[in-house]
Amino acid sequence: MTIREIRQPGDHPYVFGRYHAPIAHITPGEVVALYTEDAFEGKITGPETLPSQVLGKYLNPQTGPLYIEGAEPGDTLAVEILAIEPTRDWAVSTLIPYFGGLTSTTLTRTLQDPLPERVWIYRRQPDGMWAYGDRFAVSARPFMGTIGTAPDLEALSALTPHMHGGNMDVPDVCAGNIVHLPVNVPGALFSTGDCHVAQGEGEACGVALEISGKITLRFAVLKQTPILWPRILSPQEIMTVGSARPLEDAARIALGEMVDWLTKSYRYDRWDAYQLVSQTAKLSVANLVDTYYTVVAKIDRRYSD
Amino acid sequence: MTIREIRQPGDHPYVFGRYHAPIAHITPGEVVALYTEDAFEGKITGPETLPSQVLGKYLNPQTGPLYIEGAEPGDTLAVEILAIEPTRDWAVSTLIPYFGGLTSTTLTRTLQDPLPERVWIYRRQPDGMWAYGDRFAVSARPFMGTIGTAPDLEALSALTPHMHGGNMDVPDVCAGNIVHLPVNVPGALFSTGDCHVAQGEGEACGVALEISGKITLRFAVLKQTPILWPRILSPQEIMTVGSARPLEDAARIALGEMVDWLTKSYRYDRWDAYQLVSQTAKLSVANLVDTYYTVVAKIDRRYSD
Amino acid sequence: MTIREIRQPGDHPYVFGRYHAPIAHITPGEVVALYTEDAFEGKITGPETLPSQVLGKYLNPQTGPLYIEGAEPGDTLAVEILAIEPTRDWAVSTLIPYFGGLTSTTLTRTLQDPLPERVWIYRRQPDGMWAYGDRFAVSARPFMGTIGTAPDLEALSALTPHMHGGNMDVPDVCAGNIVHLPVNVPGALFSTGDCHVAQGEGEACGVALEISGKITLRFAVLKQTPILWPRILSPQEIMTVGSARPLEDAARIALGEMVDWLTKSYRYDRWDAYQLVSQTAKLSVANLVDTYYTVVAKIDRRYSD
Amino acid sequence: MTIREIRQPGDHPYVFGRYHAPIAHITPGEVVALYTEDAFEGKITGPETLPSQVLGKYLNPQTGPLYIEGAEPGDTLAVEILAIEPTRDWAVSTLIPYFGGLTSTTLTRTLQDPLPERVWIYRRQPDGMWAYGDRFAVSARPFMGTIGTAPDLEALSALTPHMHGGNMDVPDVCAGNIVHLPVNVPGALFSTGDCHVAQGEGEACGVALEISGKITLRFAVLKQTPILWPRILSPQEIMTVGSARPLEDAARIALGEMVDWLTKSYRYDRWDAYQLVSQTAKLSVANLVDTYYTVVAKIDRRYSD
Repeated sequence: MTIREIRQPGDHPYVFGRYHAPIAHITPGEVVALYTEDAFEGKITGPETLPSQVLGKYLNPQTGPLYIEGAEPGDTLAVEILAIEPTRDWAVSTLIPYFGGLTSTTLTRTLQDPLPERVWIYRRQPDGMWAYGDRFAVSARPFMGTIGTAPDLEALSALTPHMHGGNMDVPDVCAGNIVHLPVNVPGALFSTGDCHVAQGEGEACGVALEISGKITLRFAVLKQTPILWPRILSPQEIMTVGSARPLEDAARIALGEMVDWLTKSYRYDRWDAYQLVSQTAKLSVANLVDTYYTVVAKIDRRYSD
Repeated sequence: MTIREIRQPGDHPYVFGRYHAPIAHITPGEVVALYTEDAFEGKITGPETLPSQVLGKYLNPQTGPLYIEGAEPGDTLAVEILAIEPTRDWAVSTLIPYFGGLTSTTLTRTLQDPLPERVWIYRRQPDGMWAYGDRFAVSARPFMGTIGTAPDLEALSALTPHMHGGNMDVPDVCAGNIVHLPVNVPGALFSTGDCHVAQGEGEACGVALEISGKITLRFAVLKQTPILWPRILSPQEIMTVGSARPLEDAARIALGEMVDWLTKSYRYDRWDAYQLVSQTAKLSVANLVDTYYTVVAKIDRRYSD
Repeated sequence: MTIREIRQPGDHPYVFGRYHAPIAHITPGEVVALYTEDAFEGKITGPETLPSQVLGKYLNPQTGPLYIEGAEPGDTLAVEILAIEPTRDWAVSTLIPYFGGLTSTTLTRTLQDPLPERVWIYRRQPDGMWAYGDRFAVSARPFMGTIGTAPDLEALSALTPHMHGGNMDVPDVCAGNIVHLPVNVPGALFSTGDCHVAQGEGEACGVALEISGKITLRFAVLKQTPILWPRILSPQEIMTVGSARPLEDAARIALGEMVDWLTKSYRYDRWDAYQLVSQTAKLSVANLVDTYYTVVAKIDRRYSD
Repeated sequence: MTIREIRQPGDHPYVFGRYHAPIAHITPGEVVALYTEDAFEGKITGPETLPSQVLGKYLNPQTGPLYIEGAEPGDTLAVEILAIEPTRDWAVSTLIPYFGGLTSTTLTRTLQDPLPERVWIYRRQPDGMWAYGDRFAVSARPFMGTIGTAPDLEALSALTPHMHGGNMDVPDVCAGNIVHLPVNVPGALFSTGDCHVAQGEGEACGVALEISGKITLRFAVLKQTPILWPRILSPQEIMTVGSARPLEDAARIALGEMVDWLTKSYRYDRWDAYQLVSQTAKLSVANLVDTYYTVVAKIDRRYSD
């Protein structure tokens, strides 16, 4: 099988929205491979390239939007992730002034000085680990930091996770899983980017192991099955994703969506579903650094199959 | 070896504080077994015993306090959990009006009606699972919902998790793990209770599989090694626990404590520690229902050993 | 003087953004009067028109955008409000399901039922008060709930207050005051709407005394004096406005902006400015119901003049 | 009339709780004057006494507790404030490391350095203003930062505002007003302290114009009229006070309490009360620096009388 490869023609968008023209039309079932830039559009290459000196105003360039044939508002777009491959052998993380989880920020504002700027370069090792010099190495578990459709009315920054998906920074957006996204406009207008070789839960400093990537996908359109928020299916679990501030609101959304999902699709009584979620859910923080924070709730498939 | 068994003589305290006299003096290294009541002091026994009708004003009776010989302010109390055994074959969960994560509460207040009251009785099955009728069954993973020392000045409700431990509802407070708690008063004044057969992360409805239990412990006193917040060590991971509102503040505490721990005990550079946590931590919600919410950060022991 | 009157030609936009073409070009110094629809575009007219039955998907129709000649990114747009006049003698408030400050919402989610839908019609009295039947009457203090410029990249819902202004619901956006807004795109692309006859601080139920209005304005462009967030000047006070979640982050922004303003424009030492704000600021909640919450900090002009 | 004067015999308590013996028994109707220390127990006297060097572990020494004859759980204690007089001619404010609203703190934790320590000494001027050198002067409006009763079970730090009152930092706790507090234990066990000559709303830096004071009071016991949270009555307004985190939860409590008060005491329909609050309330931040944040809702007495 020849896989259709898609590279961004011209500038990458830095928003999810209906106001950008699609770069390609995709048929459901077709396998496509998208090439994505890293979050910094490749501008940070070593300790000497300080973020404040080389970065422009926007982060997270997207590849897209893609127009998915047949997708209409009220449908769900199912995105099957077949593979995510880093396209270089080094990744970069940084401390960016007033950005991250353990610093004050432009939204959680204080009068304190920023943390120092730092750049970490990780290199792929023969054993598959990614090492920061001889200090430590982390396992590769590549995933897409941003993935989403166009909101119906708004154009939202590629730094924002919300009902349309976007910058969720959920490590489960990885190969082998299926991501469900709401379709808000004709063609869904799908985009993705911000490939991470690895990232801890919470993405504490705000920057993962950033890398350029190639993501291989297959789309399906679930007609007239609207969802409010993104969902993820892995072979072991079903997952719901909520993004909001404060963090407890993100958790409430993820939990509430799971109760609704169990009730509507798996025929649990509403209160039994709440009970099941209370006793068996996993509930992890995906990010506490983006414009909205993201929480993922997970239920074992033994309860949904 | 004969294990010393401790039952509460008289009333159970419903606070962590220095104002209750110790019920026993314990020597470090001694193995003791404590018997604990369930969170409702056994008053909810079936669907007909509605929480609003049978519960008193307080929840989470504690067994304790225990005076640990040699523990002084500035020390750390290390609590090795050797075993946690339910002492009956049924557990109970409920919906309590205006309590839980997917309802408004006395602190997150709305004008809406409460959710309906419900009681779920789970029974131990021959295969070790705990079943709610024929609807669903959950795996047993018993742990203590509350565990802590006395604050130096305050007396804090047994519903509150904070720097002293308390009602953290962290599933990793289980057999095989070691819990580190700050010592704030002479003798530490340790208490525990609120045994759970199982609980999902977040404890969404606010009530786990509540049960009476027997917990077998061994204490050690780490002299002059003060800690600010509780920590947990498992064979695979080191963990920090933060409890605060909003939930992001709990996460910040857990992450900040982990950075400090890695820096002070494992000789990482401060910013490398922040980086390591950013790329490898797990960050899960223990509860979003108590008077403070609790988050746990975990790092693989490959990075600390 | 003849005042140029501007009515929306065609559909009202429901976003602030650069993607809508301007409806008029305005010269700084020119006096213009804009006609605005109420937040419901006039669809709720009495107790029988329940919000859930008559409202469409969007609220807060805007009049605009206006292209202000000479305004460029990095400038500040000063909007002098000369008059705000209701254009009818009745106003409407409602309870909308899952919207407001004392109910769970789509973002602060619970499993509870919504509050009942209600409609209140207020009528202008001969004494100038606005009365709800014979129950109670409130004083008129008309102001614009939404006022803002276009963000540089995003298109943000007219329900959202943020750095560009938008749905701040600040009662001080009233006649006699001057609103400063950042200019992010050429021409600023100013819009306004959501006229309120009156509103309490916090806008507790999410809906004020909604009315159609006529607002008379004069614009000035302050060249190369960038601001981050909206500011308001009254004859008695200078004010800063922050919009974020949680509410403390909105307060931090408003306070931090005030410290910066005092430092940069009024030559206070940074820490003296912090001290002055600590001892003399007023700090009130404008709304705790919109997609971001809004807080206003105020300092008496005795300290700035 | 001779007014009974009460000075603390021995150490001042740093908690509100039932575990301290009363220092005096007071008859309702009796006028008493209490002498209070400043928040630092007088230890900060000039720019050279840096907080980190001279302060002990605890802040906000209380004068009390007072046993109010006849007060029993379920009653309300009405505290009429007849006068508040500073007992010296200088007041002090400071920046304390990791404390305040525009810095990270022990609970809102970052890896940033603290703000610099600073001390401001204000001196009373002949015109009644309090001046910081020749930089600026503020008007005196003395009030008590802490005022409260004992919780029924807990002993809460004098830095904490909650249902019992405590460290609310509400400027309306001033002469001429009446404060209503819940009675949770026999005798109420009333304490007060932390006199402020002046303070801005929000108490941004965490420290007001701290001073020692003399407060003249008269108590009344409202039998069998339980309240959940503190209330304040001024000649112009009725007020409710909520303390919680995040700040929106404090606002929800204050607003919800006001709706309940209007419904129960002033016979409004529940939804009309919500509407009235929505259109006429003032909603200001008292503090966003204490262990819980405090918000005050105010309604004009025209609506309650």
